[in-house]
Amino acid sequence: MMAGMTETPHPLYDRHAETLDRALTAITERGYWSAYPESPSPRVYGETAAADGKAAFEAYLGGDFPLDQAGDGTTVTTEASPFGVPLDVRYPHAGADQLVDAATAALPAWRDAGPKARAGVCLEILDRLHRNIFELANAVQFTSGQAFVMAFQAGGAHALDRALEAVAYAYAEMSRHPGTAGWEKAAGKGDPLRMTKTFHVVPRGVALVIGCNTFPTWNSYPGLFASLVTGNPVVVKPHPRAVLPLAITVRYARQVLAEAGFDPNLVQLAPEAAGEKLASTLALHPAVRIVDFTGSTEYGDWLESNARQAAVYTEKAGLNTVVIDSTDDFAGLCRNLGFTLTLYSGQMCTTSQNLLIPRDGIETDQGHKTFDEVAAGIAGAVAKLTADPARGVELTGAIVNDGVLERLDEVTKVGEPVLESRTVEHPSFPGAVVRTPTVVKLDAGDTATYAREWFGPISFAIATDSTAHSLRVLRETVGEKGALTAAVYSTDEAVLDAAEAAAVDAGVHLSCNLTGGVFVNQSAAFSDFHGSGANPAANSALTDGAYVANRFRIVQSRRHA
Amino acid sequence: MMAGMTETPHPLYDRHAETLDRALTAITERGYWSAYPESPSPRVYGETAAADGKAAFEAYLGGDFPLDQAGDGTTVTTEASPFGVPLDVRYPHAGADQLVDAATAALPAWRDAGPKARAGVCLEILDRLHRNIFELANAVQFTSGQAFVMAFQAGGAHALDRALEAVAYAYAEMSRHPGTAGWEKAAGKGDPLRMTKTFHVVPRGVALVIGCNTFPTWNSYPGLFASLVTGNPVVVKPHPRAVLPLAITVRYARQVLAEAGFDPNLVQLAPEAAGEKLASTLALHPAVRIVDFTGSTEYGDWLESNARQAAVYTEKAGLNTVVIDSTDDFAGLCRNLGFTLTLYSGQMCTTSQNLLIPRDGIETDQGHKTFDEVAAGIAGAVAKLTADPARGVELTGAIVNDGVLERLDEVTKVGEPVLESRTVEHPSFPGAVVRTPTVVKLDAGDTATYAREWFGPISFAIATDSTAHSLRVLRETVGEKGALTAAVYSTDEAVLDAAEAAAVDAGVHLSCNLTGGVFVNQSAAFSDFHGSGANPAANSALTDGAYVANRFRIVQSRRHA
Repeated sequence: MMAGMTETPHPLYDRHAETLDRALTAITERGYWSAYPESPSPRVYGETAAADGKAAFEAYLGGDFPLDQAGDGTTVTTEASPFGVPLDVRYPHAGADQLVDAATAALPAWRDAGPKARAGVCLEILDRLHRNIFELANAVQFTSGQAFVMAFQAGGAHALDRALEAVAYAYAEMSRHPGTAGWEKAAGKGDPLRMTKTFHVVPRGVALVIGCNTFPTWNSYPGLFASLVTGNPVVVKPHPRAVLPLAITVRYARQVLAEAGFDPNLVQLAPEAAGEKLASTLALHPAVRIVDFTGSTEYGDWLESNARQAAVYTEKAGLNTVVIDSTDDFAGLCRNLGFTLTLYSGQMCTTSQNLLIPRDGIETDQGHKTFDEVAAGIAGAVAKLTADPARGVELTGAIVNDGVLERLDEVTKVGEPVLESRTVEHPSFPGAVVRTPTVVKLDAGDTATYAREWFGPISFAIATDSTAHSLRVLRETVGEKGALTAAVYSTDEAVLDAAEAAAVDAGVHLSCNLTGGVFVNQSAAFSDFHGSGANPAANSALTDGAYVANRFRIVQSRRHA
Repeated sequence: MMAGMTETPHPLYDRHAETLDRALTAITERGYWSAYPESPSPRVYGETAAADGKAAFEAYLGGDFPLDQAGDGTTVTTEASPFGVPLDVRYPHAGADQLVDAATAALPAWRDAGPKARAGVCLEILDRLHRNIFELANAVQFTSGQAFVMAFQAGGAHALDRALEAVAYAYAEMSRHPGTAGWEKAAGKGDPLRMTKTFHVVPRGVALVIGCNTFPTWNSYPGLFASLVTGNPVVVKPHPRAVLPLAITVRYARQVLAEAGFDPNLVQLAPEAAGEKLASTLALHPAVRIVDFTGSTEYGDWLESNARQAAVYTEKAGLNTVVIDSTDDFAGLCRNLGFTLTLYSGQMCTTSQNLLIPRDGIETDQGHKTFDEVAAGIAGAVAKLTADPARGVELTGAIVNDGVLERLDEVTKVGEPVLESRTVEHPSFPGAVVRTPTVVKLDAGDTATYAREWFGPISFAIATDSTAHSLRVLRETVGEKGALTAAVYSTDEAVLDAAEAAAVDAGVHLSCNLTGGVFVNQSAAFSDFHGSGANPAANSALTDGAYVANRFRIVQSRRHA
């Protein structure tokens, strides 16, 4: 029998079997579950964890990043913190061929180790990252511009949950068949035909993960771990402005791999020099057979069209839409949407952009509200959350890059502001670029303006003829341009049903009447799907069966028993 | 709640639940199971079944095919039987837009019916087809050129098994999450956050199935039923020379759909006129979101490159390879391979083409055999099976089209024949085009000849330097050009292991030491995977999780509980 045909137990699998089992249950139930506590409280993580993590982060600054990975001898330094903090980390650079060759060499032993060993190693990597979650959170904060608590949660605990979710889906998929099966078929009067069949889980090849600026870990981990656990070596190409969180990730992954006796080149960092186009070179490399990407529609479409040798999973731009019909909690509606628009200055792929409101206003628990009153209510909630700079910046964080600033400038020319964006001085980081959200009034006829994504703290209060008209706009714009989220507010069951029908037709996830502590821009791992793959905003969901099933193939052999 | 959110039981689901459950077990165990008896014996199917089926088939000939499907008023007649039997069936023709529009209109109610109802209807369709299996078998025989028993088995029972297997995988995939889930998360000292989440199974859109000439049902059913059961209306575009088997399939599918209260346009026939290129027009239609294709590498590659709006599943050409190292049953080896090369005149996508034999010969239970003796032994088995025309044609059937004849002519120029192809007069069908297989000697250096597919009764006995060399040739040629099957004969466990390692590297399914009643060109539904998707011969397997998971998406909605 060739190596790997009979899977031997692996100590790391045994160590994490209970967590994996719980995750496997969670993905079938899709109720609430989380493996990694989201509270950065010392009661959860210990008194020294926060300071230790901050110190570990700071130790990287201005130095050569400690990565035991072969390179071409040069380093790259491309980050610029939205908080204005000098980072100046030097990352070892390698060329595409060098990376792909090293990954290719690492593949066979990893493939032959089998699903259990790979799952054990992946869960150990997640555990190692979790032990260093404060270090990771600092790195996410200072590269993405997220405020600390958000960086800890979205960039740390939730990212780890999404990674574990991907591992669970992939493990379930790899283990839905036995490793070997007996086959016995009656054959007339003679002896039955008897065969033994072996089913090998075979990875596609080298996997490439292309990270984004805003969520370097959360958006990269599902693809990274889905590919890795299914046997594919992974090359991690971070966004040039958000390298550190993934460099730390790769560092700990390589540590665990080496400790477990595997080639650390199963996970490699591929930082790119300015103008190098390393992502594109890697994506077109014949040995690269999987690409995961989060970012612009333009580049995602380019990857889908050109990286033909690979399975390409993309999350791109969209038009997140809210249909406001009526509410029995107007204050809650305004608070809830206000928070959504304010969080991370709206720089989430899930932040609502288009708020569709009947021009004749809506009925609420506070009586009839005109269109302007609804828009002002939501804008007022934003204004309140951002009024005090010290408290405001803990929600807004900082502006991730100049593209957002340019759009904030451009949007002043397209419509009447309900709320203007303000420049805020960050109390702790004088170099931070902070802007509060703007809300701009538009008419449903202004499709040229609102039927494109304005990524950043920009949303539109759009006057429609009626809720039916709003639903038509949702159906058409989301159907054509895509969206990751949609929401509806209504006291009328028929409207909620119509909104759900429109969301199903447009292929977008819908949240109904959120007025409390759940927000349309947040999705919970193990319960909410992120993206549907059913509209142009993404060609896949993070995470479901389709996201993992094509990252490996089954190759069988059969012999007479 | 919108229609379809809460799935009501469906009588057809109840009727077939036991079969579906058994199929769901079979795909996890992958041992022997079959739902549809493969023996055409009157003891199984009743005394009159064969005659009734033949009569039903003959009733179609020379007439308008009875299909209750809107068309453009024209008919097409494109078939020419390999058995020389006049068919002259006129099929109602429709244009691409008409087909796609009708399919699109049928989608919402089918989607909203939910997985259970769709599975029930699909299993009822399979049951209806099974009741008419002799009619189907005759249609497959006289369009594909398969002999009757093979047409009954591969074109009837096994095709139905593969269809059921696809339904089972798809049903498992659709039902891995609950339709609704409760979610409750602690929220500090306040009430917990409580949501109810609904997960809708949403089809991709219109599905297109492009059939092939040789296996009109077997190769089309998995895609047809995988798409249909996941909610996608299916347009069935048969090969112009093998329309009838799929016309019969569509006819019964539409009957069942209409009886169950669904729009029969969920399954439509799209026969194409000569030179019309309807397949390409349909494949590029923006509303067509899934394409399943079996056929040439050239057209499969074209579809993959151009039908960018769709998920494209292709099975193309390959270089099925046998590595002959040694054997303890030389007679069995020759009989087994002789049967494989003879069955349906080698016109199977799984028939071995390249027989790699060390030029110094091999060790066997009959002592050392030279290269020529091995080649002659296999060729002799073919000659024996085809010596008597009456018995031979029941194995070989007839030649499917002129392309095969052209290759038979061409191959006489490329190497020395071990066995020449003969023209045989069919005892029952004087117009049948029958050719026996040829085996041609080549050297491992003749890659220009054997590193392309010679579809038809053509195989090569290729002299290599050693078994290690043979394995290198397998790895290289299959890695580059693909294959659906590989086989090895060896008494040495180390060679078997090395062959398995090479097969895993090349991504091809391997059969070891087949000397009895199991043949490398045959795969058993529910146990053997057909194609791996891991080499260029196919981008997917029939059938596995990856084959079904991306035919639908999950769209969720969530509300406070």
